[in-house]
Amino acid sequence: MNERSDDRALKVAVLGCGAVGSQVVRLLTEQHDDLAARVGAPVELVGVAVRRLDAPRDIEVPHGLLTTDAVGLVSREDVDLVVEVIGGLEPARSLILAALENGASVVTANKALLAEDGPTLFEAAAKAERDLYYEAAVAGAIPILRPLRESLAGDKVTRVLGIVNGTTNFILDKMDTSGAGFSEALEEAQELGYAEADPTADVEGFDAAAKAAILASLAFHSRVTAADVYREGISEVTAADVQSAREMNSVVKLLAICELRGDQVAARVHPAMIPRSHPLASVRGAYNAVFVESEAAGQLMFYGPGAGGAPTASAVLGDLVTVARNRLAHTRGPGESAYADRAVQPMGETRTRYHVAIDVDDRAGVLAAVANAFADHDVSIQTVRQEGRGADAQLVVVSHAAPDAALSATVAQLRSMDIVREVTSVMRVEGGDE
Amino acid sequence: MNERSDDRALKVAVLGCGAVGSQVVRLLTEQHDDLAARVGAPVELVGVAVRRLDAPRDIEVPHGLLTTDAVGLVSREDVDLVVEVIGGLEPARSLILAALENGASVVTANKALLAEDGPTLFEAAAKAERDLYYEAAVAGAIPILRPLRESLAGDKVTRVLGIVNGTTNFILDKMDTSGAGFSEALEEAQELGYAEADPTADVEGFDAAAKAAILASLAFHSRVTAADVYREGISEVTAADVQSAREMNSVVKLLAICELRGDQVAARVHPAMIPRSHPLASVRGAYNAVFVESEAAGQLMFYGPGAGGAPTASAVLGDLVTVARNRLAHTRGPGESAYADRAVQPMGETRTRYHVAIDVDDRAGVLAAVANAFADHDVSIQTVRQEGRGADAQLVVVSHAAPDAALSATVAQLRSMDIVREVTSVMRVEGGDE
Repeated sequence: MNERSDDRALKVAVLGCGAVGSQVVRLLTEQHDDLAARVGAPVELVGVAVRRLDAPRDIEVPHGLLTTDAVGLVSREDVDLVVEVIGGLEPARSLILAALENGASVVTANKALLAEDGPTLFEAAAKAERDLYYEAAVAGAIPILRPLRESLAGDKVTRVLGIVNGTTNFILDKMDTSGAGFSEALEEAQELGYAEADPTADVEGFDAAAKAAILASLAFHSRVTAADVYREGISEVTAADVQSAREMNSVVKLLAICELRGDQVAARVHPAMIPRSHPLASVRGAYNAVFVESEAAGQLMFYGPGAGGAPTASAVLGDLVTVARNRLAHTRGPGESAYADRAVQPMGETRTRYHVAIDVDDRAGVLAAVANAFADHDVSIQTVRQEGRGADAQLVVVSHAAPDAALSATVAQLRSMDIVREVTSVMRVEGGDE
Repeated sequence: MNERSDDRALKVAVLGCGAVGSQVVRLLTEQHDDLAARVGAPVELVGVAVRRLDAPRDIEVPHGLLTTDAVGLVSREDVDLVVEVIGGLEPARSLILAALENGASVVTANKALLAEDGPTLFEAAAKAERDLYYEAAVAGAIPILRPLRESLAGDKVTRVLGIVNGTTNFILDKMDTSGAGFSEALEEAQELGYAEADPTADVEGFDAAAKAAILASLAFHSRVTAADVYREGISEVTAADVQSAREMNSVVKLLAICELRGDQVAARVHPAMIPRSHPLASVRGAYNAVFVESEAAGQLMFYGPGAGGAPTASAVLGDLVTVARNRLAHTRGPGESAYADRAVQPMGETRTRYHVAIDVDDRAGVLAAVANAFADHDVSIQTVRQEGRGADAQLVVVSHAAPDAALSATVAQLRSMDIVREVTSVMRVEGGDE
């Protein structure tokens, strides 16, 4: 394909030159010849929009390409493809919309924006008849959106379970392997650069919830936004919870869970115990993995680095090659698919399983009283284990699946009972039989 | 998209109605409405070619669709898409070529044909300006070809390590967990339906070699055929080899290995020891997994069922949706990408690592003599472990990476030495540092 003349060259503008943007620029430069061969025409970097021209960068941006005028860059008549790796809602949204309106195709890694306001972007792309690709928005380098959107398009996806936030996985893994508490593990993650100074978006599950919204939308062909996703972070996970999981041969993970429940979609992010035999249990450190269940394919898992400049840039470039090929062929890839238009099930109605550890008085009738609390809310018990005696007596109860509201009402009732000294650990259980 | 009129319906012919074909027919029927919404037009089954009309089948094929005239079916003017799930070289090849020539797009699961004669098919597809998709040919339901071809198109893949044959993985897993020998484990696999009565294609690595050729072609943008792939099966793997692996905290897997070695491509299939800490080590039973290393993305793994009617049909249908969308848009997906045109490195030159266990006489100078044999071939030793004493003395040597020919010459020399009573286990080592 080397005989293509340069007037077929596709012109790329990159918005943002931080950890991801600088790697995008590097790959566009280093892989220039391979990209040209794979696309069918040269891909030429024509501008990189940054906030400050003199900020320190990981790479040398070719002379004359840096600009602080992002609006001007996306409005240039000759720009075919815009890569948005600024992140955040604004000015990213306005720039993407301007780029589409100007006739450019867009590749973005912006999970927050897509989860918050995806439909606005998708509609703009449809109206402009341009591509909007965003593989890098979920689980970094791991190809997961394309498989959901294309490879599984002839199948019926029933569940997606993802470890989609490396920071929290690092922290929970640390707590599991070292017995450390949450604060101690968070501090280590911060020292090693796995957690930010303000870790809220990661540890409180906001980042994972944005990704859950994107995954649920694609898996179930429906619009699911971040606001639809039930969210609990890991800041209240204790060393005792992790220890309790160990005793059940399980491990605590922050999971993004998207499920087809009858005609509805359930989407939630919370810490959960999963059996050590589950493929997700062995996802260590800051790695990500997404486990997919579908009617015909069965169980699939996709594993890899979920963040980082180069891995995220790999996903961006993969999209860029497809979008560029589409552009050369005067066509587009599949746009938003929301035809199924499924409603989101409220968390209270979503069936979950609970693990509850309770300090109790060791006297006759205690087990019956606890069992009654579960029965009062129609929650059936799968296992009860009693540990210790006398003042140290502890009951560990694992329920069968029940509506989440019934389970949390059961826990509230347990907390109010005289014979219960303390409910020491409450955590949902996933990845096993219901 | 429901407003599309039926004259936009895409007409599908299925060739073969065995384990995979019957599931393709089932999904086309059951998922009809979802497929129509995802494609943008109805997808209509117009014929199913079989060898015998009255053969017993897993499903009820709609009345009037069965035919024994496959040639007539692919020549029908109204057929847009042909799904080939007959397998084998002929008549599959002629039917695919006829379908393309007739203007139909093709989806196939035929790894043997692609690995044997892929270029002929790719050229026919290019000439006809039609799609030829084949995700189902490698690792069943696992989306691996699309990620390699599209998601990683902006990256530089350096290595692909795959467990791509479920039969051999089941047998090796059985040998590992139960201590069984090869024959015993094979028998169990046959009883459970994981191995065929004539297991040659699986246990001798022919099936895995075909998949290695396909993976290497895609990963390295070069033509690699089955004949280019070095191949060793597992029929000579002994319980002692598996035990020896256990002692090194490793496990024996049949691996399809595709590597970029300078300007060359190395592609090989053989049993190898990999550390239990490697993500591929925990792939159990008949599951498949493909581990990919690339310059920017780092390490990725794709895991799932590698065979079976429904999983394979899921992959076929995913391709079918893409090919149907392309057809509606009067476009094609990426065709063969062989621009890099890399040569295949001969196995003898490919750098590998060996694990060698040797029964020796326990007397002075033995270790020096063995070390000399390695040095004679410029092979550097990573570790030596001595076990037992006297008549039971055994040396276990693990080499650093060296040309495979040097390693096998070393083993031949060891076998000829007086102090060596027997070389009890020779196996390559993968998945660690060189």
